[in-house]
Amino acid sequence: MYDLIIIGGGPAGVSAGIYAARQRIKTILITKDFGGQIVGKPVPVENYPGFKEISGMELMKKFEEHVKKFDIEIKLGLVASITKDEDFFTVKNQESEFQAKSVIVASGASPRHLGIKGEGDFVGKGVSYCPLCDGLFFKDKIVVIVGGGNAGFESALFLDNLAKKIYILESGEKVVADEENQTKAKKSEKIEIITKAVLKEIKGDNFVKSLEYEDAKSKEVKSLDVDGVFVEIGHLPATSFVKDLVKFSDEQGRSNEIEINPRTCQTNTPGLFAAGDVSDVLHKQVIIACAEGAKAALSAFKYLQDLKN
Amino acid sequence: MYDLIIIGGGPAGVSAGIYAARQRIKTILITKDFGGQIVGKPVPVENYPGFKEISGMELMKKFEEHVKKFDIEIKLGLVASITKDEDFFTVKNQESEFQAKSVIVASGASPRHLGIKGEGDFVGKGVSYCPLCDGLFFKDKIVVIVGGGNAGFESALFLDNLAKKIYILESGEKVVADEENQTKAKKSEKIEIITKAVLKEIKGDNFVKSLEYEDAKSKEVKSLDVDGVFVEIGHLPATSFVKDLVKFSDEQGRSNEIEINPRTCQTNTPGLFAAGDVSDVLHKQVIIACAEGAKAALSAFKYLQDLKN
Repeated sequence: MYDLIIIGGGPAGVSAGIYAARQRIKTILITKDFGGQIVGKPVPVENYPGFKEISGMELMKKFEEHVKKFDIEIKLGLVASITKDEDFFTVKNQESEFQAKSVIVASGASPRHLGIKGEGDFVGKGVSYCPLCDGLFFKDKIVVIVGGGNAGFESALFLDNLAKKIYILESGEKVVADEENQTKAKKSEKIEIITKAVLKEIKGDNFVKSLEYEDAKSKEVKSLDVDGVFVEIGHLPATSFVKDLVKFSDEQGRSNEIEINPRTCQTNTPGLFAAGDVSDVLHKQVIIACAEGAKAALSAFKYLQDLKN
Repeated sequence: MYDLIIIGGGPAGVSAGIYAARQRIKTILITKDFGGQIVGKPVPVENYPGFKEISGMELMKKFEEHVKKFDIEIKLGLVASITKDEDFFTVKNQESEFQAKSVIVASGASPRHLGIKGEGDFVGKGVSYCPLCDGLFFKDKIVVIVGGGNAGFESALFLDNLAKKIYILESGEKVVADEENQTKAKKSEKIEIITKAVLKEIKGDNFVKSLEYEDAKSKEVKSLDVDGVFVEIGHLPATSFVKDLVKFSDEQGRSNEIEINPRTCQTNTPGLFAAGDVSDVLHKQVIIACAEGAKAALSAFKYLQDLKN
């Protein structure tokens, strides 16, 4: 019987591990690997305070070494399910099961991909899933945002200070961003919205050069000369194993995110906490995920203290 | 006219600066220095993910270099007042004044000191203001917690797994921690509460050896042999210059902390954000202060976008 099981080895999980270890909580961290979205980041991280510029891979390596310095058990593998009986949780993976009094879910999320030709070839070479991370590289360039939801519009507005021209491509009849975002976008002379655009292929040589799409009505195939493609068609938090124990956010565009108390990371189920990109925390940033992991561990500690007394 | 004024050069302020700069917000950071409580930390920081062990001073130096890499203006000095007229804020220091559309208050807090003989001499040599940071050094030792409020009791309960013996000293007739904390403390065989204890002096050689106090009733002077003294008589957030624009927390023990929306760092006044130890964020930790600064900057960015449209 553990005091705490942490699920996930990205920034939130590792930070939770560090904080749990320092509080001498008997902890096991279960993860498929040490990583998460940060490792796939095509450009250096420049906004994790303390490191002026570091590759996502290298930063994650530092996180991994940091947590491994402490006396916590680490188990590599995927989690299949979590159940709660009375005051304890059972976490199962393929081969074995683990029991604990508390659990932190820090299993992260991954951006949904387009699944079209060329997308994979140009990741880091013009295709990005994070305008906040990569926006600076597209100063005075032509970019496409794929996705006419709030995320897409907010990315377009964010890039409005930077890019020369911004297309928002939406596959449906009309965009679904809220009025406020649409009004703002209309005021920009740089932003142009194209609906009924079904994406076909991203083309280029060393870097993205153009994007082909089909007009859903006329079936005409069109091509846009672009330097960058930002994909904003949602994220997929990894929650399948825990869906029966948590409440999901009812905010628009966050329906796959675990709702938490923003001060404590507590979910719907006592003793079960969620931290980082799997939760409905507003911003998906490495520094914020780390803080959320720390908070979740400190909350788990308090929960364990309360159980004892 | 700036878009954003950040007040404070500790972890929260610096992180806010990094995020603001990356979003090309026209920013000025006003601070008396780059530092905060982290710099005075007598033992290495071991819980800032990415650095296994680093002195507070060195980590802060890295933060300072990081923010200075970006194109934001830095002004050294103390802030005297903030006022808001219509949609803009005026921040005054001794010599000059600055105007901006939004402000992030990240001015930090400092632990209240006892102000008794010996206290200053033994900081880092047995006198601590942070059990979470320094608790590990008192494994199997005798410690005193000064302060019978919730913070004092929670520190005692935290140290219960570590120390051999824990005294809680309270100057009043009785302790003021809530029932839950008192009940928990009573269950511990290690924790002993001494009330009406008026502290006189901390003694030792290289390290703390004893603590003298006077019984407020009998006037008898007593001495306790101790290895550590944890001072838990509150923090003092630096808020005098902003008190008319914010609401303070109404949670017990947090009455000097600026109340914020925990998801956005928004205070009571639109366009005015607070981040880090000056706010009512639950845990005063470097990693959390950094994340709060990042959140505040992202919220300020959104606020500025909304102003434009």
